[in-house]
Amino acid sequence: MKIDIREQVQNGPKYFLRNVSVDNVIFGYHERELKVLLQKPEGISKWILPGGYISRNETIDEAAKRIAEDRTKLKNLFLRQFKAFGTPVRISNEKSFNPESMGRLNNLELDSDFWMFDYFVSVGYYTLAEFSKVEPNGAYYAEECTWWPVPNIPEMMFDHKDIINEALKYLRVDIHHLPIGIDLLPEKFTLPEIQCLYETILDRKLDSRNFSKKLITTGIIRKLDEKRNIGAHRSPNLYVFDEKFYKEALSEGLVLTL
Amino acid sequence: MKIDIREQVQNGPKYFLRNVSVDNVIFGYHERELKVLLQKPEGISKWILPGGYISRNETIDEAAKRIAEDRTKLKNLFLRQFKAFGTPVRISNEKSFNPESMGRLNNLELDSDFWMFDYFVSVGYYTLAEFSKVEPNGAYYAEECTWWPVPNIPEMMFDHKDIINEALKYLRVDIHHLPIGIDLLPEKFTLPEIQCLYETILDRKLDSRNFSKKLITTGIIRKLDEKRNIGAHRSPNLYVFDEKFYKEALSEGLVLTL
Repeated sequence: MKIDIREQVQNGPKYFLRNVSVDNVIFGYHERELKVLLQKPEGISKWILPGGYISRNETIDEAAKRIAEDRTKLKNLFLRQFKAFGTPVRISNEKSFNPESMGRLNNLELDSDFWMFDYFVSVGYYTLAEFSKVEPNGAYYAEECTWWPVPNIPEMMFDHKDIINEALKYLRVDIHHLPIGIDLLPEKFTLPEIQCLYETILDRKLDSRNFSKKLITTGIIRKLDEKRNIGAHRSPNLYVFDEKFYKEALSEGLVLTL
Repeated sequence: MKIDIREQVQNGPKYFLRNVSVDNVIFGYHERELKVLLQKPEGISKWILPGGYISRNETIDEAAKRIAEDRTKLKNLFLRQFKAFGTPVRISNEKSFNPESMGRLNNLELDSDFWMFDYFVSVGYYTLAEFSKVEPNGAYYAEECTWWPVPNIPEMMFDHKDIINEALKYLRVDIHHLPIGIDLLPEKFTLPEIQCLYETILDRKLDSRNFSKKLITTGIIRKLDEKRNIGAHRSPNLYVFDEKFYKEALSEGLVLTL
């Protein structure tokens, strides 16, 4: 395994596309907070998104999926490509990414014209993962891989903070079109729970009567004949997402106003 | 000019990024039809989107803008990046794109491992252009550059028909969030004109009373103290888009239900 990685770093363009990569913003939701899964490369004080190079025999979607699955140890994740990032300086401006820091990881002698230091366009994906099921698993170069709350992101390498902020913008628009909650909430949930998720993502309060009415009348969620027992006189109804409805609505251009 | 292009084709990677390009779906609206601007490369019977390679000194947005401006002879176009396309076979599957067809254009002897035939990820942009102002201007390899009605697209090279179809999907979602009409309609328009544009893009009929009420009450369009005189007893009011409103609404996450 060690030898493979060394070979792949040294002779990258034999295995991977040049000048184009993928980055993943993996969102989770836990204790009323939206979180992202980040890695800290060995010997560098900044953090980095899970991302990587695209193999010559895989599609960009497959590359993003492979990386998201590697970092979360989960299958069947919801992935959405949202935006590509490409400026001549997005890699070269990062002073902590240099021949020394990269060479140290693999005991390589690298020049500054090494393929990894070239202009890379990165295709951004966001992934929704159920927090409690994720087993964070850093890449070979990472010494840490852990969740960070979105309002409190640490210092990031490259333009990765911008990528997170853009992912958030898309998530906030997409929540009006896509079944975002299916992947972030447990299968069964109460109305206050789903409202809290929406409020956290949108970063604003929603009128609770209006909110639940809209979700129910549009058919996005469905009430179960089941309640959660959380104590005397407190047994809220449980709801589920209606996936069939979502698929139909999506093809017709569902728009949910909140 | 001829020499520059020959040199840039032959020694592409000196000037351009490898494995990543941009493609533009340039939309116009004319006589109640949505149209796209397409090119026919010399000696090939299929059509191609305006697109190109990314210079080492420009951002991907700048590349898309440069190409859109070159093909339309217009400045200040509305461009929106919508999706990147990347599969190992999207270039190599196109049998009409081969050493012979490329070499003929520049009198070059090309091998099949020539950089242009490699796996390319293409970042898709759509552009909105006011039909009547566009002067279609094909790239150096094009023998034709002209508008085609969206329901009637000719046979396309590569995956370019898929790229057009995807652009349409994004346009249909974006019309609920972005001031699409500003760029496709003349500055002043009547209610039936803007409704027809929306119906054409969404490909469905809209209730006219509801439609105009929503656009006016949300503040998207504003009535002018001005009417169009189109004959006896027919002088419909003219409207304009409220750009200031749009900018504010966008930052707050406007969603228009139609």
